[in-house]
Amino acid sequence: MNAMTLQVVSPVPTDIDIANSIQPQHISAIARKLNLNPNHYDLYGKYKAKVLLPVIDELKGQKDGFYVVVGGITPTPLGEGKSTTTVGLCQALGAFLDKKVVTTLRQPSQGPTFGIKGGAAGGGYSQVIPMDEFNLHLTGDIHAITAANNLLAAAIDTRMFHESTQSDSALFNRLCPPNKQGNRIFNDVMYTRLKKLGIHKKFPEDLTPEEVKRFVRLDVDPDTITWRRVMDVNDRFLRKITVGQGVDERGMVRETGFDISVASEIMAVLALTDSLSDMRARLGKMVIGNSKSGEPVSADDLGLGGALSVLMKDAINPTLMQTLEGTPVFVHAGPFANIAHGNSSIVADKIALKLVGPGGFVVTEAGFGCDIGVEKFMNIKCRYSGLRPQCVVIVATVRALKMHGGGPAVAAGKPLDRAYVSENVGLVEAGCANLARHVEIVKSYGVNVVVAVNRFSSDTDAEIAAVRAAALAAGAYEAVVCSHFAHGGKGAVKQGGVDTRSRYLICAKDINALLIIIVENNPKKIVQSDVTNTNMHHHNFLMRFYQIDLGVVVQKACENATEAFKFLYPLDASIKDKIEAIARSYGASGVEYSEQAEKKIKMYSKQGFAGLPICMAKTQYSFSDNPAAKGAPSGFVLPIRDVRASIGAGFIYPLVGSMSTMPGLPTRPCFYDIDLDVTNGKVKGLS
Amino acid sequence: MNAMTLQVVSPVPTDIDIANSIQPQHISAIARKLNLNPNHYDLYGKYKAKVLLPVIDELKGQKDGFYVVVGGITPTPLGEGKSTTTVGLCQALGAFLDKKVVTTLRQPSQGPTFGIKGGAAGGGYSQVIPMDEFNLHLTGDIHAITAANNLLAAAIDTRMFHESTQSDSALFNRLCPPNKQGNRIFNDVMYTRLKKLGIHKKFPEDLTPEEVKRFVRLDVDPDTITWRRVMDVNDRFLRKITVGQGVDERGMVRETGFDISVASEIMAVLALTDSLSDMRARLGKMVIGNSKSGEPVSADDLGLGGALSVLMKDAINPTLMQTLEGTPVFVHAGPFANIAHGNSSIVADKIALKLVGPGGFVVTEAGFGCDIGVEKFMNIKCRYSGLRPQCVVIVATVRALKMHGGGPAVAAGKPLDRAYVSENVGLVEAGCANLARHVEIVKSYGVNVVVAVNRFSSDTDAEIAAVRAAALAAGAYEAVVCSHFAHGGKGAVKQGGVDTRSRYLICAKDINALLIIIVENNPKKIVQSDVTNTNMHHHNFLMRFYQIDLGVVVQKACENATEAFKFLYPLDASIKDKIEAIARSYGASGVEYSEQAEKKIKMYSKQGFAGLPICMAKTQYSFSDNPAAKGAPSGFVLPIRDVRASIGAGFIYPLVGSMSTMPGLPTRPCFYDIDLDVTNGKVKGLS
Repeated sequence: MNAMTLQVVSPVPTDIDIANSIQPQHISAIARKLNLNPNHYDLYGKYKAKVLLPVIDELKGQKDGFYVVVGGITPTPLGEGKSTTTVGLCQALGAFLDKKVVTTLRQPSQGPTFGIKGGAAGGGYSQVIPMDEFNLHLTGDIHAITAANNLLAAAIDTRMFHESTQSDSALFNRLCPPNKQGNRIFNDVMYTRLKKLGIHKKFPEDLTPEEVKRFVRLDVDPDTITWRRVMDVNDRFLRKITVGQGVDERGMVRETGFDISVASEIMAVLALTDSLSDMRARLGKMVIGNSKSGEPVSADDLGLGGALSVLMKDAINPTLMQTLEGTPVFVHAGPFANIAHGNSSIVADKIALKLVGPGGFVVTEAGFGCDIGVEKFMNIKCRYSGLRPQCVVIVATVRALKMHGGGPAVAAGKPLDRAYVSENVGLVEAGCANLARHVEIVKSYGVNVVVAVNRFSSDTDAEIAAVRAAALAAGAYEAVVCSHFAHGGKGAVKQGGVDTRSRYLICAKDINALLIIIVENNPKKIVQSDVTNTNMHHHNFLMRFYQIDLGVVVQKACENATEAFKFLYPLDASIKDKIEAIARSYGASGVEYSEQAEKKIKMYSKQGFAGLPICMAKTQYSFSDNPAAKGAPSGFVLPIRDVRASIGAGFIYPLVGSMSTMPGLPTRPCFYDIDLDVTNGKVKGLS
Repeated sequence: MNAMTLQVVSPVPTDIDIANSIQPQHISAIARKLNLNPNHYDLYGKYKAKVLLPVIDELKGQKDGFYVVVGGITPTPLGEGKSTTTVGLCQALGAFLDKKVVTTLRQPSQGPTFGIKGGAAGGGYSQVIPMDEFNLHLTGDIHAITAANNLLAAAIDTRMFHESTQSDSALFNRLCPPNKQGNRIFNDVMYTRLKKLGIHKKFPEDLTPEEVKRFVRLDVDPDTITWRRVMDVNDRFLRKITVGQGVDERGMVRETGFDISVASEIMAVLALTDSLSDMRARLGKMVIGNSKSGEPVSADDLGLGGALSVLMKDAINPTLMQTLEGTPVFVHAGPFANIAHGNSSIVADKIALKLVGPGGFVVTEAGFGCDIGVEKFMNIKCRYSGLRPQCVVIVATVRALKMHGGGPAVAAGKPLDRAYVSENVGLVEAGCANLARHVEIVKSYGVNVVVAVNRFSSDTDAEIAAVRAAALAAGAYEAVVCSHFAHGGKGAVKQGGVDTRSRYLICAKDINALLIIIVENNPKKIVQSDVTNTNMHHHNFLMRFYQIDLGVVVQKACENATEAFKFLYPLDASIKDKIEAIARSYGASGVEYSEQAEKKIKMYSKQGFAGLPICMAKTQYSFSDNPAAKGAPSGFVLPIRDVRASIGAGFIYPLVGSMSTMPGLPTRPCFYDIDLDVTNGKVKGLS
């Protein structure tokens, strides 16, 4: 092997620079690897395609591959590398272990890309590319959600306005105007409302004045409206606003606000649906508030379920992209993990599982720690999809475990305390209580757990050994190191850039007996080597080794999966029983409801929504409601401040504390660094 | 010819049903007709493609085709069929006269699609398809504009907030934080601000405290902010709102509002730019308001010009679609005609003119009547593009001319008065004063005028003759009938559906000697016929004949174009002189300025913006400011209520009366009828 083909770049470049340095394959080549032909997808440029929903029907007879979900321990505000691990694992499975693999990821919100967070395509040499397209617009799904969400919002205010200014008969004449033949007719969506009202008449002229009144007056109680407008921008000044102050709106002002678009219930619908007819039904059923008599008012009552479905008809098709190593990725849906279930779409997973087939892998990610993310993955997503995972990967870092063991606070944008960059096995061991509880939570579903320790360069072997011991003691199937510390990057260590086009890298035949193979180029020229060979010693090679190690372990965990899957709670339990089951899984001794929460639970039960699963809106920074309570707190009483519902998406969400649904911009947002290279149209400064 | 191949459908189906009944060609086939190869475009599904900007450079050496713009007389609220005429003309030129032709159209706003208006893809058998994709999302350009516009809005409020809560040095530390090497640096966009401030220093540490203050404090005067948020939804309750009422915003409330997205200045920038570097510059120069000392504050002052360009980088590529007859269409940009220039993009026209080449045609449309639409096309769009049209088509209807001659008011949704459906040559003749002035306005630019009378079934030959006589007397090059009355549809007349795949139709060799040719199928089997042949007598055949007639006339007008092009005003005239030149073209005797308008003219002049062209915001329903003043009013004084500016886009816009920039929804919006056929994903009820 010619060592000169190693493009050693030190320090490791920014994510966008790495992403831009790789020429992605045409997405039709990626599709071909999955046996998709051009009728199965629509291209969106050269590097993105929407795989079309009817593929599900075509593959109905096909068996599913293995289903793996990546969760995490309770994170620090810096994040523990779940996405990067997910992408790295798939690169290992697909590009080096020759397995069929699809990564299914959430589409990131565009707002934070320009704020603090930057992009969300993985990192370093484990990324989804083109990274700028992943982070910006993608194929327009979030824009479609914004449009649909806000059309519904506009319809609510306008309908209230029209009801306030018109008589029953004027409203009726306008809603059911005579057609050219002079006949009035109801259309489909009106029959939906009539049926709900118990009016079984076919012709408008047959309605009694009382029935006309009930039909035309939604009589929305403004104080009960839960539907807010959305925008995919971090705009804190829209959190609380007053609308309707124009003179033409005649004083019908109302306090409301904007959420970030991914917090829209329509995003949750997109993530949980699996067909056009199901999506149409869910969108129509979404409840926007109550009538003054306490009846839920739905999008279909407003005549809007069909139009919302039309706006969302392309969004239901998952977007195919690729990793830096050319393995396929589905990017689809990204419900806000704070108030929704934080998992990518069911549609993408279903299609992917058929495409990879038996022996193949679909690896997805569940937002936040396993207490919230994996819990919702199991009890909401898997419940609706009917799918069952064979393996859960829990990503842990020594840094986070030290924090849980009593280390100083960790904050974004501030230098790390010394405790985090020098050996302290005691702190790690103490913090492993957090990891252990996450392992136990996941094990309770009857699924194998693999712990992946995302190793940083300052982590010592003794610290790593402590984590592994704790993981195994807690019942993990296996615990391995996975690392992308190449981009943590101490300046003193020589770093290696991986030219993925030339595919030189390590291949593990077995965990214990590592055989390193260097595949130099296409056509493949295989050069055996070993880990002591000079050029093997840089971090990317180690990273790759670890990824492959993880891949082999995950494969074993899947092949040895149990068949003992069980949910945390049955759907027919009461709302309170379900909330309490989840709270106990956190370590709580009980639950305390505010007056408001009690009232809402009664209301939703009376309205017939008690049978829905529960989507807890809780901080991700602790098992408890108190983000400062690190480690594995127990015996606390979980306070439920309020209870809300996404009826169309299909869950009740209790609020544990207050959840921000609209982030802000910092004093110096990322956008200062983002610019266009006008000579070639490439994006600069995105990280 | 087998008469059975004529799929006669009576009454004429809805637009979406006609559009859905035709299987569009794969867009790569349309691209091939223009000699575009797959490197020249990005596919967006099977029926849309974005043609990539570098095509302009590649075609630099190529000569342009003929450039035709379609305008109208002063319209009724029902519209006079400009878009349908534009599409029909292109179908005739391309599919029947075998000319290379590209139609360049505005992308319609999605908001009105769900409100009153319905779709905007032409109508009947002259449409852009797929009609639902044309009207919904398209390739995401308007969504990109919404995102960029609102990111800038969020940045304004957040910056004011941060300036109000932080000291100069805290702001400076955050804006120019030390990097990993401990050095502070300015980035590119900061140098832009420093240059504007006259500070020519390279390093942050060299700034004096006074310079730091000037650098970090934009000191925006909230009362001067002209930048509003936008949404592509008809949401009247957002016209006037109060933002910042959340507790975390500490009382920094402010009154503002939302416009419909197409009213964003960013849309006008998109329409007027012709390269990435020009777009980057314009976006950075956009002025959002003044500092308290009266200096304009720009997007680049906020550090945002680069990020906005990144959000818009794909939107700059025009979208290729097709007509029902498979002729190519560019859909690109749709600036709000009320407060911007209402013309599709310069980029699309430039690319199209090269692609059709000498002897080919690019036909575009200018919103509203010629007094506003064509005037802005000439003085703003052509001024920035450097392109010159060879022919202007003015679309007129007998209906509108009767209204201008003194007929009763015409309103949407109300039955037409008898005057409009029975012969009244006198009313028509009187109304032709309106047509004559539009012809004169256009002639003054030194361009040939063709008048196209969009004939309805109730129009009589005598009425049509009167229009033709008036048009020629006013100096029109020619006046012909063009008709799509097939979809006006009197029930008694048998209607014909055109199966465009089988291409049987009429071909005119000459205006005077008409030869009708029936081209039955592919491969072409030509059957001569004549107009008296039985199956020729339905309306679509007549419509086609008229379209071809118009095509032949337009071709002659282009071939005989004069070289005497001149603008209405020179750019170096004062703002008032320019406004007055435009007002005189309307027939005004003078202009009257409000105190506010005087103040703003002084301010913009002082700020150095007096050299920009003028974009008049005036009602389209009259030459004057009074929409009720039909015909050709003269001697009136045009009142200028206020003067605003879109500095990045590059025009000053005086407001003649108040302009609504956010439409509302009616009591029964179109969305009631719009639904998805969940069995096949097709859209129903869009019209």
